Amino acid sequence: MVYGVLFGGKSYEHEISIVSAIALKEVLGAEIGHFIFLDGMRRFYLIPTREMRSSFFATGQYQKCPELILKQHGFYTQGLLGSKQVGFSLLINLVHGGDGEDGKLASLLDFFEVPFVGPRVEACVLSCSKYLTKTFAQEREIKVLPYVFLDKHQSNALKTLAYPLIAKPNRLGSSIGIGIIKEAKDVEYVLDEVFEFDNQVIVEPFKAGIKEYNLAGCMVEGGDYIFSIVEEPKKKEFLSFEEKYLDFGRTQKVLKAEVSTELEARMRALFKQVYEPFFVGAIIRCDFFVMDDEIFLNEINPIPGSLAHYLFEDFTYVLENILLPKNPSVSITYHYINQIQKNK
Amino acid sequence: MVYGVLFGGKSYEHEISIVSAIALKEVLGAEIGHFIFLDGMRRFYLIPTREMRSSFFATGQYQKCPELILKQHGFYTQGLLGSKQVGFSLLINLVHGGDGEDGKLASLLDFFEVPFVGPRVEACVLSCSKYLTKTFAQEREIKVLPYVFLDKHQSNALKTLAYPLIAKPNRLGSSIGIGIIKEAKDVEYVLDEVFEFDNQVIVEPFKAGIKEYNLAGCMVEGGDYIFSIVEEPKKKEFLSFEEKYLDFGRTQKVLKAEVSTELEARMRALFKQVYEPFFVGAIIRCDFFVMDDEIFLNEINPIPGSLAHYLFEDFTYVLENILLPKNPSVSITYHYINQIQKNK
Repeated sequence: MVYGVLFGGKSYEHEISIVSAIALKEVLGAEIGHFIFLDGMRRFYLIPTREMRSSFFATGQYQKCPELILKQHGFYTQGLLGSKQVGFSLLINLVHGGDGEDGKLASLLDFFEVPFVGPRVEACVLSCSKYLTKTFAQEREIKVLPYVFLDKHQSNALKTLAYPLIAKPNRLGSSIGIGIIKEAKDVEYVLDEVFEFDNQVIVEPFKAGIKEYNLAGCMVEGGDYIFSIVEEPKKKEFLSFEEKYLDFGRTQKVLKAEVSTELEARMRALFKQVYEPFFVGAIIRCDFFVMDDEIFLNEINPIPGSLAHYLFEDFTYVLENILLPKNPSVSITYHYINQIQKNK
Repeated sequence: MVYGVLFGGKSYEHEISIVSAIALKEVLGAEIGHFIFLDGMRRFYLIPTREMRSSFFATGQYQKCPELILKQHGFYTQGLLGSKQVGFSLLINLVHGGDGEDGKLASLLDFFEVPFVGPRVEACVLSCSKYLTKTFAQEREIKVLPYVFLDKHQSNALKTLAYPLIAKPNRLGSSIGIGIIKEAKDVEYVLDEVFEFDNQVIVEPFKAGIKEYNLAGCMVEGGDYIFSIVEEPKKKEFLSFEEKYLDFGRTQKVLKAEVSTELEARMRALFKQVYEPFFVGAIIRCDFFVMDDEIFLNEINPIPGSLAHYLFEDFTYVLENILLPKNPSVSITYHYINQIQKNK
């Protein structure tokens, strides 16, 4: 299997995606045939493997690489003698945040029928919006922390919640733009700051010291699941962007969290309730809170940093066996139009 | 204002979209500067206004028209002397069903920063999937009929519902593929048939003779709403595809339904609860059921046939004043990568 890796994107997580792709290069080595970079102007470039270092992008050197056109079945270089397809059997969508996780690239890849590993458009919308994640989780009877969703600066809407609160941009990951509201007098300025990042904000109780566990996995051919180990992420009050950022570059395995077999089994059951059918095709990470022996879904990360490879025993096996959704075939017959023509 | 109209698409509603675009041509006349056709092979073509008749597409004659490339800021013809942009100030997405209403085209247009009227990706996912529509409605405390969502043929899951039932492909509009389950012995074959159209099916009670009302509208600049009249759609047991199909070609106004001012006000309030913030930018139609003076949301149609122009008093005014969402600006600074480089 030869993989292509798509990374970058017009988003706050652009740099994280570069770091993530470089880490994946270390892990998968020659199995990655091609790196495709999406820059902040939404241009695609074919990056030679040897140039996969962060400075190559930060300095703008990538612009000397061949630009690619996305069209039917793949990415193509344009030359004087016509266009040539970039060869891979499966593309890994490693664009974190905007473009990659908000459904845009999933749509482009599905539209042009490029086979890929990553969340499809419905999965993106359900996980990218923290509000819709909660909406979806509740329908599936999965517990979530109470919340208030704001699409404008309405501080009086928060009165159903008790301080301290955490306010998050609704559609950004990696802790970007998060603010803590310790008491009523903080509301105005914290919300002002958070609204700088997104015109939708979600506010929920801030539980200092709450137990947090991450579980990654995916469905494989045949309908079974492969799960990662359960990880207990390091955290201070909450992870800063810088800390999470370094996290995306991880190439080493981590230790399994100390959780009971019973708790792990319950997390796996919740993971499945989240996964089917919308997340088929993606290696996702569910981030759970545990409080008084109850499990709450915090977030769904549909493209975790370097695909959370470090949580899996045999990551190559996961990639080789992940179940990919089939797009329904649609044939256009013009049956009705022909019928009307005949009746004219 | 010069509009472009995008129609067609790789979907079961391909032909409906053609009929819809021809009807909109009658209504808007010279205000439509360009028609852009998306064929079943996902190729875009620039169609001269005079060729906007259904046989032009059914016979494949459209393939002689200039093919278009979608890239930054618009659609372009490719010639020997370079590429030329198709000129319009606003594109109307009139691709019903797949591609147009499932988030693909919304993503493509947002990705390439083409200004358009139509549902954005989140709106598409929330309305295209009848299951997610119900999920979303319930979160907003809007009543829906009870339902069972099936992502595989599990007939025993239906035992919570009472016959007769209606089974619908989860992600198709225009009554395509719908089946009625009158009693237990019908379950197997009806589900088999409905699963032919989608690998997700939604089943709910079939309420013969239930009152059905449609209300269209959108938010305009300044945050106010423009609402259409309330329509009571004609129906037999349920509208067949053929009947709905003809419906998409309507060019005449319809009569206002006989509803009390109070009921109309409640429908408008529910419409707003649905609309904000996800549907901003789209002229949508909410289809309600009324039973024992209670209103239930049946479906959200994010691109109604020929944009439901026939329900509005002054459709041109609606188009000219619809509020379009702004995409957040993201600047890529390479701040973190540069920081790491410095620390090396």
